[in-house]
Amino acid sequence: MQSRSSIGSIVSANVRLTDVMSHLSTTKPRVVICRNLGPDVMPLLEGRSDVEVVVWPEDSSCDRAWLLEQVNGAAGVLLMFPEKADKSLFEAAGPNLRVVSTMSVGYEHIDLTELTNRGVKLGYTPDVLTDAVADVTVMLALMAGRNAGSTIDLVQSGQWPKFRWAPFAFCGPQISTLPSSPERTVGFLGFGRISQATLKRLIPFGITSCIYTASPNSPPTHERDSAILSQYPTLKTLRRVDSDELARSSDVLFVLAPGGESTKHLINEEFLRKMKKHSVLVNASRGTLVDSDALAKALKEGWIWGAGLDVVEGEPNITLDHPLVKEPRCIILPHIGSASIETRIDMATLAVNNLLAGVFGEEMPAQLKV
Amino acid sequence: MQSRSSIGSIVSANVRLTDVMSHLSTTKPRVVICRNLGPDVMPLLEGRSDVEVVVWPEDSSCDRAWLLEQVNGAAGVLLMFPEKADKSLFEAAGPNLRVVSTMSVGYEHIDLTELTNRGVKLGYTPDVLTDAVADVTVMLALMAGRNAGSTIDLVQSGQWPKFRWAPFAFCGPQISTLPSSPERTVGFLGFGRISQATLKRLIPFGITSCIYTASPNSPPTHERDSAILSQYPTLKTLRRVDSDELARSSDVLFVLAPGGESTKHLINEEFLRKMKKHSVLVNASRGTLVDSDALAKALKEGWIWGAGLDVVEGEPNITLDHPLVKEPRCIILPHIGSASIETRIDMATLAVNNLLAGVFGEEMPAQLKV
Repeated sequence: MQSRSSIGSIVSANVRLTDVMSHLSTTKPRVVICRNLGPDVMPLLEGRSDVEVVVWPEDSSCDRAWLLEQVNGAAGVLLMFPEKADKSLFEAAGPNLRVVSTMSVGYEHIDLTELTNRGVKLGYTPDVLTDAVADVTVMLALMAGRNAGSTIDLVQSGQWPKFRWAPFAFCGPQISTLPSSPERTVGFLGFGRISQATLKRLIPFGITSCIYTASPNSPPTHERDSAILSQYPTLKTLRRVDSDELARSSDVLFVLAPGGESTKHLINEEFLRKMKKHSVLVNASRGTLVDSDALAKALKEGWIWGAGLDVVEGEPNITLDHPLVKEPRCIILPHIGSASIETRIDMATLAVNNLLAGVFGEEMPAQLKV
Repeated sequence: MQSRSSIGSIVSANVRLTDVMSHLSTTKPRVVICRNLGPDVMPLLEGRSDVEVVVWPEDSSCDRAWLLEQVNGAAGVLLMFPEKADKSLFEAAGPNLRVVSTMSVGYEHIDLTELTNRGVKLGYTPDVLTDAVADVTVMLALMAGRNAGSTIDLVQSGQWPKFRWAPFAFCGPQISTLPSSPERTVGFLGFGRISQATLKRLIPFGITSCIYTASPNSPPTHERDSAILSQYPTLKTLRRVDSDELARSSDVLFVLAPGGESTKHLINEEFLRKMKKHSVLVNASRGTLVDSDALAKALKEGWIWGAGLDVVEGEPNITLDHPLVKEPRCIILPHIGSASIETRIDMATLAVNNLLAGVFGEEMPAQLKV
């Protein structure tokens, strides 16, 4: 009996150990990845034996029903702005969810209240996209000033052979200074990382003055501004101004501020009517900052020279009847500010590292403090 | 008799004086202006009482028959590249012609042999367009890298709402360095004023190395290069290299050299096959430098990433069946490098000042020493 009992207890112990191991195996934390992140980044996940990785198998937006099913019981989810982390997603996930990691610097698609109430951490990807967006911002300023839309269209529609050259055909305002026109003022609505990276790129174009507005709640930044100014010997002034001066004095105005209700339509008809006739407006942050109807009117009636937009309110539902699509002096890009190979790899890598750190309770490389 | 004779001789003298004055009046030097130069520049001519100004009255290319008729006996002619100063023009003008003033930095439309043989001076407009062209050169590099053609087309064709976002959709190589990709080499075929102005603009994008080729006949430029290098602390190297290294090492290659037979098709299939798969080619000088068929093949087969062209061989006869117009990664502008308002005013002003100085035998502000 004893031996049997011993054997029995050994067997029983073995069974329990197997159960435990099986349980450990099934409770290996699951992470749901809403897109394939490509051959440079996926190995960071596929090489791990301590997480169960579930990846949306197609090269397209993640199916919502699939996501809600897979996220059930998951410890982490990695998503992008087309996927909403709303109440239904948090409910589907349940109490195991420790982290939402978004491959974006914006987080309008995340319900922060639900997130906080459930004690879920949020990872995002700031900083790594600053340079990519600043590049596109400069590109849009140049394109809007120099009629890139109309001129590309001339060639692509086969009209170049019929074009009658004239000394001022297709001429627009020059962003670079020259001896006969030695002053340029760039304005920034919002003067954070991307604005500063944009200014840096524009200095050798001969920019002489930089003005900006900041959130009314933000503290003075004299020290920072003095440090920036001292870096650029050719820049004569760098000043925080009010909205009226920003509108009246900017040769090129860059809108680079967060979205949301507090900044909605800061660029409206009243603002645009104050701008210079040869000025250019660039928005590479959030579409909601600019009133599209007012901007279309400003372009049509010549209050300003041109506009370059990487974002439009209501995107991506911007159809051919949208008033800005029809304006020849309006360049519109489909929100590609961060879309460079190098930067998207960096963003995806950071999103994976945020996800894994969040799942394992380690410090996340970039956690949004809500 | 004597009085009669005296009267007669006085009358005769008067007649002769009138003849002379009339002759002086009709020989007030005539200048022919092939285009209206706009309200900023025309007053420089219209305000002069010492020249007879003839201006092509329409806002289009100058009619050839009109030009040949008007130029007869003229002392000067101000023209642009669509007007050819060939043998027929010089013959129509006759021996009074002292100066041809072209509102351009290029002079392919001028027969230099005829010009020299007839002792006619040539004014052109260098330097003043350097900044405008450098701006467009930078713009083209950014546009070609970041898929500006395809992305603008997505919006303009109404397809943005249907676009399925993906992490690497529309991603191209980033011109800016970033911590994960800290090296960039820009290459220049030709390293004159416009190339140097382009390099200056690209420094804050984080360019770490600059290489260039120059005409085999041009002398070494160690001193100049050391001076340039010392201006840019973040630029590690600036070196003259051979064509092979230029092709193999450039992340962005700028073609900024004179046209003509000696530089024809320097960018050919052999050159393009050596380039990096993620490299971008920009040509903002003369179309003849690049073999269009080879470039189209390079883009189609992915030898290089993209191209940005302000000039195409055979322009403006670039129709929809041109192999480069069909390439989605090829941005083509209709030769607008110098087309900014400020620069074209400067060019027109300089062309007028060259014309007047040439007519009156004064030193011309910008005379091409043939």
